[in-house]
Amino acid sequence: MIYLDNAASSWPKPEQVIQAVTDCLRHAGANPGRGGHKMSLAAGRIVYETRELVAQLFNIKDPLRVAFTSNATEAINIALKGLLQPGDHVVTTSMEHNSVVRPLKVLEKKGIEYTEVTCSREGFLDVGKLTEALKPNTKCIVMTHASNVTGTLMPVAEVGKIAKAKGITFMVDAAQTAGVYDIDVEKMNIDLLAFPGHKGLYGPQGTGGLYVREGVDLTTLKEGGTGSNSESPWHPDIMPDRLESGTLNTPGLAGLGAGIRFIMDKGLDVIRRHENHLMQMLIDGLKKIDGVILYGPADVNKQAPVLSFNIGKLGSSEVAFMLDKVFDIACRSGLHCAPRAHRTMGTLEQGTVRLSVSYFNTEKDIEAAVAGIKQIAEEV
Amino acid sequence: MIYLDNAASSWPKPEQVIQAVTDCLRHAGANPGRGGHKMSLAAGRIVYETRELVAQLFNIKDPLRVAFTSNATEAINIALKGLLQPGDHVVTTSMEHNSVVRPLKVLEKKGIEYTEVTCSREGFLDVGKLTEALKPNTKCIVMTHASNVTGTLMPVAEVGKIAKAKGITFMVDAAQTAGVYDIDVEKMNIDLLAFPGHKGLYGPQGTGGLYVREGVDLTTLKEGGTGSNSESPWHPDIMPDRLESGTLNTPGLAGLGAGIRFIMDKGLDVIRRHENHLMQMLIDGLKKIDGVILYGPADVNKQAPVLSFNIGKLGSSEVAFMLDKVFDIACRSGLHCAPRAHRTMGTLEQGTVRLSVSYFNTEKDIEAAVAGIKQIAEEV
Repeated sequence: MIYLDNAASSWPKPEQVIQAVTDCLRHAGANPGRGGHKMSLAAGRIVYETRELVAQLFNIKDPLRVAFTSNATEAINIALKGLLQPGDHVVTTSMEHNSVVRPLKVLEKKGIEYTEVTCSREGFLDVGKLTEALKPNTKCIVMTHASNVTGTLMPVAEVGKIAKAKGITFMVDAAQTAGVYDIDVEKMNIDLLAFPGHKGLYGPQGTGGLYVREGVDLTTLKEGGTGSNSESPWHPDIMPDRLESGTLNTPGLAGLGAGIRFIMDKGLDVIRRHENHLMQMLIDGLKKIDGVILYGPADVNKQAPVLSFNIGKLGSSEVAFMLDKVFDIACRSGLHCAPRAHRTMGTLEQGTVRLSVSYFNTEKDIEAAVAGIKQIAEEV
Repeated sequence: MIYLDNAASSWPKPEQVIQAVTDCLRHAGANPGRGGHKMSLAAGRIVYETRELVAQLFNIKDPLRVAFTSNATEAINIALKGLLQPGDHVVTTSMEHNSVVRPLKVLEKKGIEYTEVTCSREGFLDVGKLTEALKPNTKCIVMTHASNVTGTLMPVAEVGKIAKAKGITFMVDAAQTAGVYDIDVEKMNIDLLAFPGHKGLYGPQGTGGLYVREGVDLTTLKEGGTGSNSESPWHPDIMPDRLESGTLNTPGLAGLGAGIRFIMDKGLDVIRRHENHLMQMLIDGLKKIDGVILYGPADVNKQAPVLSFNIGKLGSSEVAFMLDKVFDIACRSGLHCAPRAHRTMGTLEQGTVRLSVSYFNTEKDIEAAVAGIKQIAEEV
């Protein structure tokens, strides 16, 4: 199978990720932070090492400001619901995933207002328009680092500067960029960073996290046992316990740590260069096919390794079905949980076919994909 | 190492659990429910099969009423916060874990009142007292199936009958019993069942779930992408999507499925009989040691395979430290995230040392534990 659905979950995983998961299950299967015995401490160490690796990757000064979650969606929910109070205003973009839009809809019912800044058809955000949308009660700007539909990169550093100048909490959804693009919470003035473990970081599904800048206090979404302050009926204030309750996914976090080590060993720039090279091949190849419509920037310097296209008016699911059935190529079709982005692009009815690469894809994969799409386009 | 901390996380895991996790990572690493391609469907099948196994184990008619969570704590938070509205009253017991107590404290601030029925020093619940605590606005009874400190089994079936007769939603925390004791949501009239995957079910950490009886509608704790109803800015109503947002822990759920299969193959009664035999040995052995104080029923027919004890006035952490360092025995000390239970038992200051067995423990383990504890008791 040629796997081009890495924006949903990356596959394959580096061998050392699988090894780390099984090693943890076999040799450090105790509960981290819940006991003083050797194996519990070993489990705790695994979790802490992964926290340190995340901190290193995103230039986070204190690893304890990283809370682990089951995915990026949970991180976003914890952040938005922990931060916002009735009367607050939020600015976001029209390229967001449902993991941002749906919590905002629920919060809107509770008296939190939000403004969605409409991006261009290619997904570009006009920072001037975003600035105009700010109000005296704007508490938070929340946006994706790159669209999960078009890959369009957002001007995160620029928006971070504006947010900092105005004292607005800046939150970034790094679902499509963590592990591929440089993310520096200091340089980019990011206050809240939500990231998945199972995409560009090459960790297992069931992992993700939230960075919370010191001084940003969040109320809790979930409370329970943390192994700390056990005597209190109140959930502890200290990070990361404040945002982590119940037993963590230790084997998953062992795998996530191995995934981040893999990235650091290869080098983020090496990974990105390889993926950009494949994306360039894909864009060039698809541009030559009659009837193929590309969405987004169609420029590897302006997008994460995600590309959306359609073949004429053919249903996107139909194309994806043929790619899978006839050519053994895995991709995703439809709305990709981001209907606002599709409205922005004008593809709400048809959806798009999405191809997304990882470090493990090869030129051959791309050649096969281009050939397959060409054949489908010629036959319809 | 002799591992007697199974109430925190069971270890070791059956070999087939580790195999299922790695097989999933290697061969079904795509995102379940997010694509139509073969590998995404394979991932979706794994998740569904585990849902069916959970349903079979707990006699749940419709597997789709089982939502997967990252642990039991999350399941409890989803249930309590999704069910309760200001003005509602809740009845609970004094033997609950912080995963029940702490969400109730937060809800109390929002106008949800609760009554904690005090249990006996052994942890027994007087059903008469519980009935007296009910009010016209009692919306929910929430209780553990067995104390995580003393193991004391609660009269779940009896309380279920009362709840049903009065139209009160009955919620059970099966953290210490799932996989060891028979749980039948129909016979026991359980409306909401929270369970961890990484204890008695022998799955990996990072797994758990919530059963929600048809007709019990919960508001959402988290919203986001589900792969369903993508076009809507509102989170879908259908189960299990309603309570599952973001990517699931598919490899973890593959492992959980293998864990449940392991239990079903062995037979719940065979597992329980083995564990009860070891517990009987442990109780008999410890009873003979001068200075050892046992808490809870000290009767294998009245408790889950969890035993708390102290040696005179010796700090529980000190005993656990010696067991680990000198005898290579892993156990847990302190309050076990259940301070109300310790207040009930009169051990809030000292905490207790807790030993908990799994199917993988042997008579030799118990002999070694008894011998070690004897030596510590003699030397102090």
